Amino acid sequence: MTTWNKRGFQGRHVMAKNRLRVIPLGGAGEVGRNCWVLEYDDHILVLDMGVMFPDAEMLGVDLILPDVTYLQERKAKIHGVFITHGHEDHIGAIPYLLPMIGFPPLYATPLTLGLIQPKLKEHKLLDKVQRNEIAAGGKYTVGPFTIEPFHIAHSIPDAVAFGITTPAGLVVYLTDWKFDHTPVDNWPTDVAKMAELGRRNPMLLLTDCVHAEFPGVTPSEREVARAFDSIFTVAQGRVLVATFASNISRVQQVIDAAYAYERKVVPMGRSMENNVRIALEMGYLKAPEGVMIRATDMGRYPDDQIAIVCTGSQGEPMAALARMANRDYQHLKIQAGDTVVLSATPIPGNEVSVSRVIDNLFRLGAEVVYGSASKVHVSGHASQEELKMALSLLRPQYVIPFHGDYRHMAIYQKLAMSMAWPADHVILAETGMMMEFSQDYGEIIGTAPVGMIYVDGTAIGGDVTNAVVRDRQLLAKDGILMVIVSVDRATGQVVAGPDMISRGIVHVRQSTVLLDVAKQRVRESLEARSNGSADSPNGADMSYIQRKIKEVAGEYLYQKTRRRPMILPVVMEV
Amino acid sequence: MTTWNKRGFQGRHVMAKNRLRVIPLGGAGEVGRNCWVLEYDDHILVLDMGVMFPDAEMLGVDLILPDVTYLQERKAKIHGVFITHGHEDHIGAIPYLLPMIGFPPLYATPLTLGLIQPKLKEHKLLDKVQRNEIAAGGKYTVGPFTIEPFHIAHSIPDAVAFGITTPAGLVVYLTDWKFDHTPVDNWPTDVAKMAELGRRNPMLLLTDCVHAEFPGVTPSEREVARAFDSIFTVAQGRVLVATFASNISRVQQVIDAAYAYERKVVPMGRSMENNVRIALEMGYLKAPEGVMIRATDMGRYPDDQIAIVCTGSQGEPMAALARMANRDYQHLKIQAGDTVVLSATPIPGNEVSVSRVIDNLFRLGAEVVYGSASKVHVSGHASQEELKMALSLLRPQYVIPFHGDYRHMAIYQKLAMSMAWPADHVILAETGMMMEFSQDYGEIIGTAPVGMIYVDGTAIGGDVTNAVVRDRQLLAKDGILMVIVSVDRATGQVVAGPDMISRGIVHVRQSTVLLDVAKQRVRESLEARSNGSADSPNGADMSYIQRKIKEVAGEYLYQKTRRRPMILPVVMEV
Repeated sequence: MTTWNKRGFQGRHVMAKNRLRVIPLGGAGEVGRNCWVLEYDDHILVLDMGVMFPDAEMLGVDLILPDVTYLQERKAKIHGVFITHGHEDHIGAIPYLLPMIGFPPLYATPLTLGLIQPKLKEHKLLDKVQRNEIAAGGKYTVGPFTIEPFHIAHSIPDAVAFGITTPAGLVVYLTDWKFDHTPVDNWPTDVAKMAELGRRNPMLLLTDCVHAEFPGVTPSEREVARAFDSIFTVAQGRVLVATFASNISRVQQVIDAAYAYERKVVPMGRSMENNVRIALEMGYLKAPEGVMIRATDMGRYPDDQIAIVCTGSQGEPMAALARMANRDYQHLKIQAGDTVVLSATPIPGNEVSVSRVIDNLFRLGAEVVYGSASKVHVSGHASQEELKMALSLLRPQYVIPFHGDYRHMAIYQKLAMSMAWPADHVILAETGMMMEFSQDYGEIIGTAPVGMIYVDGTAIGGDVTNAVVRDRQLLAKDGILMVIVSVDRATGQVVAGPDMISRGIVHVRQSTVLLDVAKQRVRESLEARSNGSADSPNGADMSYIQRKIKEVAGEYLYQKTRRRPMILPVVMEV
Repeated sequence: MTTWNKRGFQGRHVMAKNRLRVIPLGGAGEVGRNCWVLEYDDHILVLDMGVMFPDAEMLGVDLILPDVTYLQERKAKIHGVFITHGHEDHIGAIPYLLPMIGFPPLYATPLTLGLIQPKLKEHKLLDKVQRNEIAAGGKYTVGPFTIEPFHIAHSIPDAVAFGITTPAGLVVYLTDWKFDHTPVDNWPTDVAKMAELGRRNPMLLLTDCVHAEFPGVTPSEREVARAFDSIFTVAQGRVLVATFASNISRVQQVIDAAYAYERKVVPMGRSMENNVRIALEMGYLKAPEGVMIRATDMGRYPDDQIAIVCTGSQGEPMAALARMANRDYQHLKIQAGDTVVLSATPIPGNEVSVSRVIDNLFRLGAEVVYGSASKVHVSGHASQEELKMALSLLRPQYVIPFHGDYRHMAIYQKLAMSMAWPADHVILAETGMMMEFSQDYGEIIGTAPVGMIYVDGTAIGGDVTNAVVRDRQLLAKDGILMVIVSVDRATGQVVAGPDMISRGIVHVRQSTVLLDVAKQRVRESLEARSNGSADSPNGADMSYIQRKIKEVAGEYLYQKTRRRPMILPVVMEV
């Protein structure tokens, strides 16, 4: 048993011989932007390339990407990027990051490639990216790595995990999976392959742990069919089911239920329409002839022959469901008699927006089915007994639980310890942690660059940094005050102003007195100076004047409002 | 059965004879800031006066108060303010609003008055407010209203509901309660009084419905004792229990468990220390001699003889627990061996901050107990079977469920309908809705003013309005761009600038090119004009220049960044 150097150290860049270097560039100690680097000698393999959605404090940020500085410095070594499945937290960063790391080839199953393709197209990268189709049960060799994809059950079809033979030892990359023995597509997790890999003495298991708080076994996706059944059987009007556009299995169940109850199915919301089209074309969604119809044809059928599957289950303000709840959706007005099913659990941080959508749907007279008691959603991730079963089947030397917050990893560690894994063989990694492994050896050797790369409008990375987000936080909390003053270039004397413009501090009409006094204070302080104070020579010292304005106006406003708005002095020389 | 005019109408201000007017000034269709007005002829009774905490979109706002414009216009009619219990959503607005409505007398039970007192003191209002002690089982007459408080079980002791006899009929105001037959203070809800009121044919029931999503019966507060027992019996180091400072019953259970396991109890966090002191002094908390110690005395005892009860169960960044999790709390450093119990459910919107605190506690090596499976928290509010039982006991003509979001009220309505209440006798009110009742009659007659009054630093109401909050939202989302330009007073020609200053748009170092081009565009557009365009006369038309700057800079930035920052043109005449 190796004693881990838990603190690690920076700056070691020569890799020890016969060791595999492993680095999460995202997804360790955080949920989202999964991206792993396996490196042996001059050879790099990348696993997944996902985005993370910002939390409420990252104001105005649309997406967060993994930091690929480490890969940018080693472009020539990258043999390929292997993708497990088509969810955003595994494929979303591909169009942003591939151009930054020299367009290594992609490897994924057909549906996953099908979902990646429109992203590449949108970014005009279709010609530049070599795409390779892989299949569960196949065997693919790139550089010194041999990758064996095997099927796993998740909330999207055609998902795989990887057995990866490296010169240092066998790695199993098993993420976003559960042991669903009765999945909707009748293709359960390949338990036999897991057992076979287990017999080959894996050096390292990388496993999803996001559902580690839940005891027992995650229910089969098929359990949702019962709930849908009980809803469709009593619904008098239209039935609307909101779920993730990528949850193709759930969409299949809506189609199945609709067909059984003689309803037509209408997909609504841009990403839902796209994904349904792709999955139907590729045969991953199966709909009997005539079941799928367009929104524009809905009018031909009575309400009780219509089912809608739509986006917006997370309360996203621009998605179909929220717009329906706000009476702002062209194709559909919610009315009394409609039944709306929220077939998803709110991602942490979305609870309030989801609640607001539910409230508004009730206000419009709809019947709303939501929450865990309604059993209209099951997770796609393994619970405690499944995580334990995977450990028993694979018996790895080392385990790195990931795709979870720190608490999920800590709980996973306790589970593994209850099965006699030593605590220091279950590594609680954080994004950027650089580790090296060989069959009986593991060490934390340092840290790779680990910034958050924000995507914000069209700006990527460098343009929107932590400093920008901090500015927004300050603006959001206390507003902004501009102080504009003209000073004589030669003497430094105030010739006009100060004028003040405030936004987000107090109401404009109310602020007159407040700002009048603030102007007075600033003027006095600047005049005192221009009359020749001891600590500054004559002439216009711009930085001094700016500092003085910030200090005087800031102090006064804090005193009067207990707020610290951002203060921007604008000094004009005339 | 009356048919309700659901749409109501505005502007009717003469009250019909023999009717009771009922208005929620807060707390209907929203959770928090409970405040009800009962008005008969020239007589007004106010029930509760609470605050609401802002959601994440109300940037920088600290508190939200009920809008008391209706009461301000009728100060002389107010006979008193009756308070049910000492939680912030029932007492928090008192010091802000009493001065606005002419200081009517307060009526509350001893503990509730004890918790109100420090608030009045802080606002220097102790001398101005007449405080009257009431007791469950008593009978109090103010104007034409006779109020009979009766005891109810909630997560704070000394809570009451009111039977209120009015000339129009009997009203029962029953909020923040459950049927706990084994409460910690051995004082259960007064079921007999409810039955007695029921025999008197109530005209109207106002009832809390916030837990209406939950089937069955809310577990007794005493259930938490079992969970505490199982934690205290195995904990090797210190035990920290975080809960609401106002949850005196929970604090009692920590004291009981600590005493049973021979630990000392230390309250931590300002409001926890205050409330514990008040409740101990008044006898609502009972601690055996020597059990309570100060933080400064902790060092005298080994870790396994220490229990801490602290604030911060909602992840509030300045509360004790979050500061401990951030290693920023003077009196206590979290260490391996500590057990931290989160004895509260996150209020919607707080999930992410609570998760972050849990993650950080795990990072510091603590054992963390949280979540519904751990049974360390029970709600203080009635579940479905209790709501039904109350209806069966009271049998009111009309019911207004409140203290819930719209969905809770809609679910409550369904519960009542399942018991044969007609839908239109269960009113889904919203804050500000003005209703009138007599024994067999109910009508929605209009709307009272219903603004949100924000408390923000020291500013109350008028100073911080929706416009200010909207400004902050815009600033937060896309940042701000100031465009400063000097123009000739006479000719309108640009003599200096435009200069631009951006905050929160893109990183300062990256923005040079972006802003350079934007300046160029603005300059060109203004020069085109000053060369004499057809649609404007010569001379400096300030508002035109400002509009033009907004338009040109805004369009360019949107095109380049897909963001719409707030644009503030500053035009200086020289």
